[in-house]
Formats: sequence, structure tokens, C-alpha cells
Amino acid sequence: MKAHLISIGTELTTGQVVDTNAAWLAARLTERGVEVAGKTTLPDELHPLVENVKRIAAECDLVILSGGLGPTDDDLTRSALAEALGVALVTDAASLENLRRFFRVRNREMAPSNAVQAMRPEGSRPIENPCGTAPGIHVRVGSAEVFALPGVPREMRRMFEADVAPRIAASGGGRSVVSMSLHTFGCTESELGERVKDLMKRGRNPTVGTTATEGVISLRLHAAGESPEAAGALLDRDVAELEKRLGRRIFGRDGETMEAVVARLLIEQAATVATAESCTGGLVAKRLTDVPGSSAYLVQGVVSYANEAKTRLLGVPAALIETHGAVSREVAEAMAVGARTRAGTDYALSLTGIAGPSGGTKEKPVGLVYLGLAYEGGVKVSEIRCGRHQPRDEIRARAATAALNLLRLKLLVRS
Amino acid sequence: MKAHLISIGTELTTGQVVDTNAAWLAARLTERGVEVAGKTTLPDELHPLVENVKRIAAECDLVILSGGLGPTDDDLTRSALAEALGVALVTDAASLENLRRFFRVRNREMAPSNAVQAMRPEGSRPIENPCGTAPGIHVRVGSAEVFALPGVPREMRRMFEADVAPRIAASGGGRSVVSMSLHTFGCTESELGERVKDLMKRGRNPTVGTTATEGVISLRLHAAGESPEAAGALLDRDVAELEKRLGRRIFGRDGETMEAVVARLLIEQAATVATAESCTGGLVAKRLTDVPGSSAYLVQGVVSYANEAKTRLLGVPAALIETHGAVSREVAEAMAVGARTRAGTDYALSLTGIAGPSGGTKEKPVGLVYLGLAYEGGVKVSEIRCGRHQPRDEIRARAATAALNLLRLKLLVRS
Repeated sequence: MKAHLISIGTELTTGQVVDTNAAWLAARLTERGVEVAGKTTLPDELHPLVENVKRIAAECDLVILSGGLGPTDDDLTRSALAEALGVALVTDAASLENLRRFFRVRNREMAPSNAVQAMRPEGSRPIENPCGTAPGIHVRVGSAEVFALPGVPREMRRMFEADVAPRIAASGGGRSVVSMSLHTFGCTESELGERVKDLMKRGRNPTVGTTATEGVISLRLHAAGESPEAAGALLDRDVAELEKRLGRRIFGRDGETMEAVVARLLIEQAATVATAESCTGGLVAKRLTDVPGSSAYLVQGVVSYANEAKTRLLGVPAALIETHGAVSREVAEAMAVGARTRAGTDYALSLTGIAGPSGGTKEKPVGLVYLGLAYEGGVKVSEIRCGRHQPRDEIRARAATAALNLLRLKLLVRS
Repeated sequence: MKAHLISIGTELTTGQVVDTNAAWLAARLTERGVEVAGKTTLPDELHPLVENVKRIAAECDLVILSGGLGPTDDDLTRSALAEALGVALVTDAASLENLRRFFRVRNREMAPSNAVQAMRPEGSRPIENPCGTAPGIHVRVGSAEVFALPGVPREMRRMFEADVAPRIAASGGGRSVVSMSLHTFGCTESELGERVKDLMKRGRNPTVGTTATEGVISLRLHAAGESPEAAGALLDRDVAELEKRLGRRIFGRDGETMEAVVARLLIEQAATVATAESCTGGLVAKRLTDVPGSSAYLVQGVVSYANEAKTRLLGVPAALIETHGAVSREVAEAMAVGARTRAGTDYALSLTGIAGPSGGTKEKPVGLVYLGLAYEGGVKVSEIRCGRHQPRDEIRARAATAALNLLRLKLLVRS
């Protein structure tokens, strides 16, 4: 099965926006054994879109368009498909009703221009959009299946998974490819590379590659086989080997986040947590509450940004801050203990550090963060140094992940 | 002058790598008044590359290829250009000498395979690569100027600036184009479209388009003119008109975030703020501290996730929560007032709502969030409904932006 992706939008051809949709779709198709023969990006203009749809549909089995389904005059995908097919646009009654309901439940007036989003080329099938106003369109152009999805990444992804992916699977295109990602924390990309060098050799099956984001190094595995079972067996062998070599450095798999893993462990152990943050400004609490059901374990969080806030909200003695500085082991420890005592939780995490870009000194450079973990009967402080040339958001993200990882390792000892 | 970009590499068509080269080149060309008619991404395969080069060169004045100039067997740009032109590949003596020097000054052995990088189609001109081994190729295909550059972003960018850009300028093809984005909050994309419909008409100069992300609707403007001044004057006229029509719905321009604008206003007015968050779990504090220098205005934040935490940290009476529920106007008001009083700040923001996916009821559905703003002499509560099908992260992001926007509007009244 051969596919071609078409991304539509003048914001893409003028370079204002980097096209992440096409890369995401290409990865999903490749995983499913579909060959992506090419990707085309076009501006919001009718004629080139019509011509490209006709030409590309004649060369491929599967065409996925993204973008151009909004309510404004520069959204031309509907018209282009109709023109490429030589048919009229018709209003889809069910889509129109969905649109009206979308606005009704939000207590908002539907602008007249929105009604155009319920139109589709005659003979096409609408694709439901569960989180936006623009339904997608599925239509056959010559011998190619053509799917038009919105450009909003969240909507496009959900509609691909719910509607397009099952149809590709049902058509049985492609060899079986199974994939997995393993996420690690606590070693660098090159340290990891040294440990698993032999598995990363080119031409091996499975392929093993690494990507790094904010201190998390992920291993991406793709195994190919004649059947899903054959590919899965190859994949399982490599995963077992990697788990043996990397141990608790691996914290999750397939998009699982550090906070999701910590949340699962906290819930399994019916344990509660509080946070006390300075340099991360609420990021640890925010990530702990990214997980649905977080009220089961997060009791409270404190962003003790000013020194007085550390004293007022956590009981850190002003003299301690005076003596050691707000960014110190001692203050991190007192913050964690104060947070745990005041919230009455099983655990408390604290962070104090220098996120930059200014505020660093020779002894305490930008990127230095102290992490505290208080638990029944003790408190532990770790120090991380992210490197003083790292940007503020990178330092904050790494520090938050490192703090959550401290708690994870503690919970693993208990489990 | 009409251009088309071709990105070459199987890592792009399999989605392993996001193509940032094409976006970068598109932005540079757009700035120079060159219209990017499209972008094409192709795998490392000879035949499709030859066919696409022929077709695209016949449709455009300028074609820029990136990738496929390395020393390995899957680097096919040289051969594809030669085949498209029907000429042979010849070795360029100067390029070969450059290559040898590149390795010599690094004390490295040149692999025999590297010599292929000194080859170019007969009749073409090599483009010097000051920071890598692969020279580029400049050749005329039909009436189109074709430039082939390496895929390594650093090398591609330097060679574009040093060699391609001056030739575009010399050909006088480039009109001047100036761009701007205006970011709005508080109305939907279609409401905005209704208000500025006439300015968004196709074929106008400047062009005006919209994009939406987490409740922020951005207007993208591009003005073209004979000189940067002429284009700038056209742009300014439209910006003034948009500001007149949209007023304070516009909060920033050119990538400015809501939190950066709020931070600037707080600093200008030497005002301080505290936060009290429930459903957003620290996101508002996190965003306020994304801005360097945030200790000037953020005194403290509280994530009062459990009901007891609302009472303990903010003094919200337990009876009030009991009577009205934690997600209510009354509790939002008490949270904001409690946060302001306890922190001793000029302002305090509070948020309490249902981020989902569960926990919604008929009267209080997922997506309902109450936002409180306490200030000297008063407190104001707003209600937003994001729609119960929105995902948790979208609801939280919109609620955080809406809360920051409340504070912005208040600060604007004072300024």
C-alpha cells in the first residue's frame, strides 16, 4: 500500500509554522507497514490543490490531506475535492446538527460561516470530529482512498486513530510492523548508546534508535515480520534485553510519562503527596495533575516563590534562608519536611534552584537545582546541574522530571 | 518569482525526523518576496526524484532541493539531477581538492566513498560548503534555476545565505514582504472571521489569515511592496484597522504570550500577584514563572487540590464548600480573596473547575471553570465553559489563559 500526504495552509508554505502533522502521520503509516511515497505542502489556493489531488490520487492507494477544513474563505479542501471529482458540494444534515450541538452545549452563537463546515462533496462520507467543529471527509478518487482531516493536530490525530487507522488495518495493506518506545531517565544519550550499541546497528531487525527530550532518552524499536505475531516476538526479545541492561533507568513505555508512572505507583500504594516548588513555579504540581484522577494522591501544592512565602507556607526558618541561601540543600530539606508536615501526606517533593537566565554565581550557577523528598522517618536531598547554558524552560522541565523520578525510585523500593 | 522546495530523505517520509529545513527556507523566501508555491518531500529513491524534479522545474522559476548529497548509496540528488537533464556526472577538480583539504585539516583519512561528493552534472556549477563535505549544485533545468543543498540544517542555511540568497536578490525577482502576527483571546475563530471578513478576502495585499491554538486566535498578516518601506506602510495600515476593530481582544504580537504580556504590565505597575489553583494544578503559576524575572511580581502560589487544602491554605470555610460545592462562584471568590489576603499581594487569581474526563454532572459539566480575580476593594468571578468533549489538557490550558486574560484586562484599566 502506497500513501501520499498533502498538508494545506499558507502558514506552512510561508514557513510560519513547521509541519508536524505530516511527520506524525508518516510515522503512524510507516508503523503500519504503509509506504509513504511522498509528502506535498500547498498554500490555501484552489487550483494547485485540485491539480495535485488529481495527480497524486492517480499515483497512490491512499491520500491523507490535513488542513483547509475551517469555516473561513481560505479553507478550500471541501471545494477542491468536489472539483477534482467533478461533483457538487452538498450539506450533510447530521454534520450540521453536530455543529449546532457543538455551539449549543457551549452556550455560544453559531456564526453563519460555520455552516459551510457541514458541506461535503456528493458521494463522500463525513468523518466525525469529536473535539472540534470541522468534520473530515472520506471519498474515493479514482482507485485511491482519500481522507481529508483538519489541520489542528489534536483533532487530526484523534480522527486518524478512530477512523482512518482501522480502515487501513481492515484493508490489510503492508507487512506487519510492530513498534515500541522505552523511556529512560538518569543517563545521557551517549551513555545509553554505549550500553546498547550492538542493538542499534544499522540493518538489524528490530531497528533501535534514540531520541532525547528534556533529559528523557527514549529508545524507539520497530520490528518487521510476516505476521504481527512474528514481528511481536522479535520485538519482545529486544525489549527483554534492554530491560535487563537498563533496569530502573527505564521508567515507562509508549508515550507513558514520568508523572503517569508516579501516579500509578501512588494509587497502587494508596499514598499521598504534596509539593513545594520554587524555581519550577508549579510545574511539578501541574504535571502531577495532568493525570486524570489526580485528586486521589495530590493533596496540595505550594509555589513558595518569595522567601517570605517559604517561611509562611512551609515554615522554613528565615534564619536558615539567611545563612545558606534560598537555593541550598538545607532549604530544600526544610521545604520538603515543611510541606509534608503541613499537608499531612505520605511524601512531599521540594525544588529550589536557579532557572536563569540571570541569578547565577560561580558557586551556584544557572542550572543548579536541589530536590528534596520527605517521607515517613526521613528526608533526602539530591542535587542536579543542568548546565548553565541551558534555557530556562529546559532547566525547569528537567528539574521537574528529576524530582518525580526521585519519588518513583522511592515508591519502587516500597512496592 | 515562484519557488518550490524539495526535501529528500527516507527519514522524512517515515516521520522519524520533522522537516524543519523546508519551513526555514520557506520563511527566508517569503521574506524576500518569493512565492513558495509548494513543498515536496521524497524518499531516497532515484526514479520519483527524477520525475518530480522534471515536473516541478517546468512549473516554477526556482527550485531548492535539500538532502541527498552525502557520500552513501542512498544519496541520490547528484544522479537525479544528471538524469533529469540527460547529462553525465563529471568530477569537479576544485571540489575534490576542497574535500581532500577538509579531511587533511582535521587529520582524518578520506574514505574512498567521499570522492563521489565532488561529482556534479555536466554544465552545473558547484556551490561551496564552508562547514561540511558536500558541495551544493546550481544548475538550470528548463527555465528554472535549481539549487541542491545538503540536508544538514547548519550547512544548508549557510550555503543558502552565502550563495542562493544573493542570486535571488540579483535576479530582482524578490518583492519586499513584511509579516506580523496579532494574537487575540476572547472570541472564536468564526466570530473573528465575521469581524474582519473584508480584510481576509483572497487576493488582497496584505493577506490576512487566522490560526487557532488553545483558545488563542492569531491573525497572520503579510504585506508585499516594491520596497520594505512600501510593504511596511501597507502592513501598518491593516494593523491599525485590526486594532480599531478588535480592541483589547488583541493581547500581543509576533509570538508574544499571554503570560509575557501580563508580566510586562505587572512590572510596569510594580504590582504583585498570588495564585490559588484547583483544576489547573499549578499551570497558572508555572506560566507566570515561565517569564525570566518573575520573582518581581509572583509572591506565591497555592495548589489547593483537596477541599481541606482550600480551607488550610486559603481560609475557604468548609461550610461554604459544603453548601455550594468546590466548583462554584462562591468558592472561586473565597479562594481569590483568601489568596490575596494571605500573600499580601495587589492581585490574586483563583481557578476551580472540572477538567475531566470524569467528575462532570448535568449542571456542572466537564469544561466548566470559575475564575476569580481579587484586587484592592473587590473581587470578580467569571465562568467559562470549554465544552465537555474537550480533553483535559485543552480545558486546563484555556482556563489558565482565560485567568491570565482577566488579570490583563484589569491591569489595562489601571494603566
